[in-house]
Amino acid sequence: MRFLLTNDDGIYARGLSVLYEALSQEADCLIVAPEIEQSAVGHAITLFRPLMVRRATKTGNFLGYAVCGTPADCVKIGIKELSDKPVDLVVSGINRGGNAGINVLYSGTVSAATEAAIMGVPSMAVSLNTHKEADFTFAAQFARKMARLILNNRDQLAGSAINVNIPCLPPEEIKGAVVVRQSSKNIIEFFEKRMDPRENTYYWFTGNPQAENEPPDTDVGALASGYITITPIHFDLTRYDLLDKIHHLVEQHDF
Amino acid sequence: MRFLLTNDDGIYARGLSVLYEALSQEADCLIVAPEIEQSAVGHAITLFRPLMVRRATKTGNFLGYAVCGTPADCVKIGIKELSDKPVDLVVSGINRGGNAGINVLYSGTVSAATEAAIMGVPSMAVSLNTHKEADFTFAAQFARKMARLILNNRDQLAGSAINVNIPCLPPEEIKGAVVVRQSSKNIIEFFEKRMDPRENTYYWFTGNPQAENEPPDTDVGALASGYITITPIHFDLTRYDLLDKIHHLVEQHDF
Repeated sequence: MRFLLTNDDGIYARGLSVLYEALSQEADCLIVAPEIEQSAVGHAITLFRPLMVRRATKTGNFLGYAVCGTPADCVKIGIKELSDKPVDLVVSGINRGGNAGINVLYSGTVSAATEAAIMGVPSMAVSLNTHKEADFTFAAQFARKMARLILNNRDQLAGSAINVNIPCLPPEEIKGAVVVRQSSKNIIEFFEKRMDPRENTYYWFTGNPQAENEPPDTDVGALASGYITITPIHFDLTRYDLLDKIHHLVEQHDF
Repeated sequence: MRFLLTNDDGIYARGLSVLYEALSQEADCLIVAPEIEQSAVGHAITLFRPLMVRRATKTGNFLGYAVCGTPADCVKIGIKELSDKPVDLVVSGINRGGNAGINVLYSGTVSAATEAAIMGVPSMAVSLNTHKEADFTFAAQFARKMARLILNNRDQLAGSAINVNIPCLPPEEIKGAVVVRQSSKNIIEFFEKRMDPRENTYYWFTGNPQAENEPPDTDVGALASGYITITPIHFDLTRYDLLDKIHHLVEQHDF
């Protein structure tokens, strides 16, 4: 079996390296990851410049392909061009920082998994809910078990990426794994206005997560309460519940 | 009323200028748009560098705010910081190039509208289905009518962005407007491998749209048949139909 591993923190990130070690016990793993950190790139792809691809090494050995592009680029080119055999599973991560709630839309990590699902390849994004240096070992072992679950049930899960978030807690304090919906409540966000030395205005974007107010059946709420969260993600953005309603509005409207 | 206008082709794009003229007949319009073209950036946001904001002018008059960031950045900072009054509607476009099917996920134009919906502001993305120089007049007039429809029904449409695609045809050849789902079929994509003058490998990403095979109840299919397409878009990516299934799989699995 061939797993394709990627991330948005860049090819030399520790989360990816720990993931590689764990998943290599399950399959032949190929790393195709961004040359440079790509956090918050969302589902960006590279259209208007070529993708440079480099064989990256670590202590003299082949590490994987480093791509001057986004996580979604890595998945596209990894599956179509760089892997010398068919890819059975794409795993993106382990991200340093949770990818739950509205952040799922901004996340390069999750978009890599979504891209794989679009291409018909089973996939999973794995994120560890901390922005500090952390131990990825437990998360990587959980990813390994999830990989097995996904592959054993690939027909049932076809067309969906699986988004996994892991609390940054000692393993014995983690309360279990729950299957929950994506929270779609907004984060409290604001901009800090500053002046540069040449008196030009600039802004820093910042925000406060509101996890404590989120219901326990959402990724944000469950993660904050110490659960591993598992959320199936899709790429059909249609609001089906509104199709008929808008159809009637358009019919009545003066066009 | 205040409309906020943005795009992903950049503040000086003609599609935005024609949109501004048409919508100024409906409301007080403020342009907050990327300084530089941002196509295919998806829902990227800028976190790790500050956002530079410039008052842009055109023939000596204030044109709008140019932001060194993505369309989603423009909407966030436009609503939170730059608009001197509450924003009633965000309109993103008029994009040169359709944004239908899987392209919706890669589209900066659509992501700007989605960002507004996340922030609780009614919104619409408008794209003209051509990559050539084209006449945006008809599309802008249609956008104006859609703006009215959305504002008149804002409660019913709350939490959804509206994605509009307009065929690049003479108005009399357009068959009408239909409300359709997003196609989620993949585009046929491939990479062209080339060698640079220093013998490094690089790749150009390219693809063939498959519109002729798409059913008429999808955006891609209807657009190719000469219809204006209207698709309500959401930002909750949960595959609700899989929640229970995966819950049972996780329960049975050896974790």
